Amino acid sequence: MLLYIDNRYSKNEQMKVSKINEKEIIDIICTNFSAKKNVVVGAGKDDCAVIGLGKCYLILTTDMLHKKADFLDRMSPYQIGWMTVACNLSDIASMGATPFAFVVAIGIPNDTDTVFLEGLGDGMEACASKYGVSIVGGDVDRHDELTLVGTAIGKVDKSRLVKREGAKAGDLLCVTGNPGSAQAGLRIALGKNGASKNAEDTLLGALFEPEPRIKEGIELSKFATSMTDTSDSLATSAHDLATQSKTGFNIHEKQIPILEEVKSISKSKKDLRELFLYGGGDFELLFTINPKDLDFASKKVTFSVIGKAVSEGVYFDDPKEKVEFRGYRHF
Amino acid sequence: MLLYIDNRYSKNEQMKVSKINEKEIIDIICTNFSAKKNVVVGAGKDDCAVIGLGKCYLILTTDMLHKKADFLDRMSPYQIGWMTVACNLSDIASMGATPFAFVVAIGIPNDTDTVFLEGLGDGMEACASKYGVSIVGGDVDRHDELTLVGTAIGKVDKSRLVKREGAKAGDLLCVTGNPGSAQAGLRIALGKNGASKNAEDTLLGALFEPEPRIKEGIELSKFATSMTDTSDSLATSAHDLATQSKTGFNIHEKQIPILEEVKSISKSKKDLRELFLYGGGDFELLFTINPKDLDFASKKVTFSVIGKAVSEGVYFDDPKEKVEFRGYRHF
Repeated sequence: MLLYIDNRYSKNEQMKVSKINEKEIIDIICTNFSAKKNVVVGAGKDDCAVIGLGKCYLILTTDMLHKKADFLDRMSPYQIGWMTVACNLSDIASMGATPFAFVVAIGIPNDTDTVFLEGLGDGMEACASKYGVSIVGGDVDRHDELTLVGTAIGKVDKSRLVKREGAKAGDLLCVTGNPGSAQAGLRIALGKNGASKNAEDTLLGALFEPEPRIKEGIELSKFATSMTDTSDSLATSAHDLATQSKTGFNIHEKQIPILEEVKSISKSKKDLRELFLYGGGDFELLFTINPKDLDFASKKVTFSVIGKAVSEGVYFDDPKEKVEFRGYRHF
Repeated sequence: MLLYIDNRYSKNEQMKVSKINEKEIIDIICTNFSAKKNVVVGAGKDDCAVIGLGKCYLILTTDMLHKKADFLDRMSPYQIGWMTVACNLSDIASMGATPFAFVVAIGIPNDTDTVFLEGLGDGMEACASKYGVSIVGGDVDRHDELTLVGTAIGKVDKSRLVKREGAKAGDLLCVTGNPGSAQAGLRIALGKNGASKNAEDTLLGALFEPEPRIKEGIELSKFATSMTDTSDSLATSAHDLATQSKTGFNIHEKQIPILEEVKSISKSKKDLRELFLYGGGDFELLFTINPKDLDFASKKVTFSVIGKAVSEGVYFDDPKEKVEFRGYRHF
């Protein structure tokens, strides 16, 4: 029993968390964590945790969203609810798994209108039921700042699990959807643009009601050698696959399928890269496949080949230029 | 696609959440929730959600803790970590299940010291590993207020699930441990007492490092006809069992095993009831068993018989007096 006096840590050098990055924070918290042998993928290693249970793997992920960091004034309660579910389902999709249950803890400010709760609940249910997921429980608490923590569970046959690790040199690098759409939507939401009404609708939709790629992830689990979602940026995701797979990537910039609406609000080539390469918020899948599977995979899922796995480094190949390891950062 | 304009809710009467209680908030959020047929216990129905998966049930629970509501200044980082895990494991225990995995989302203020993170991680790991649970993942985010949301998963054979529903008139009402210990600890932590050093250590230990009754819950799953944990108060838990089981309880007040340390800091009989009956924070199990199982159950688990299930109403029997339906409230 330690009671309220706990001097064990006083000899360590102290530093404020504002001075260290997200990975360093996680490493400190996890210093003494140990996992049982049924844990296939543990804390901080992939988009989700993976635990053996009978013939399948259970897939688990949790995500905190809160007003100051994640919710713009233009977001409706319905969209906040949708996003709370979608961001977790996207992580489940990236493992090739099928989500089936969701729980949510909600910290609610006292001055919240009940009508907000209706929209919030409907948005969560809309996203969950669209993807076959039951919202089975939760917790509500009074909180100064609207805070939503969703946790999703999925399952996958042991032979179908796809991790960030697994890409081999020669594999094709592929992506679903259109990189940069959500980041362009964010620019519109913040009022920094002269977008047309059509562009505005498309890009705000991409930002506020992203579709987790559940069906695509399940199909791709037959082919993909590595996979992650692109929520923190295309660049971050490519580096994550490269690091975990111990490979690199040559990316063919011209083959990245960027929407005309995104191009229309960018000010320069450099600015466009900030949107499609370093911008966050897209819930697309970035994955690798063996070239021999390309034709068959293409019949099952809509995606674009944007590069090739090489021995090391993440570069654009024409002209050769380094892709930085950066994107949306929580810290 | 709804985009950012969402007028569907504007016709409803609006009210602030500060004017409604926790159950009403949950009911509004869940209005349109639907669950698949594999969901045995859904949102808001029991201590945990229950989902069929192969030969067993998966048990899921999530709990939000945050500084203003849950952490006293005297709590060490280690104890905050311990509590984050323990409160979820207690819910798993109350279903008769075995917890095996835990994920946590942590909102961290910028001025937090890294040494705090060390203690927090160690406290979480200490509680998890003591009960055979792996901490498999999480999320960290910057947040103005320290906020911790843990989610625990357990499993139980389908024949062994224990719910709040199931008590029959004539069953014995039983409790593990010593009701009121944590609430008495809270009074000490707030400085409102003249407790001895020994009493202080015992009661602050009960408050800050509660032991979830995992082993007891698993043993009791062979006997218990209904079960819940007492975290919101003994009175709340008795009413929850009564409501879900459609029974009542006669409680023998004199048989409730209250620690001498708790009695020593209470000012009157009425005040003592505030501690053991209406106080929160104990992570004990309140359950019912058929009288024929009493001897055998007593050999496996340490507990006290404190009453009997009757057709309706929750009362003290000597003298007859109503037990109110109140305890710790999140709203």
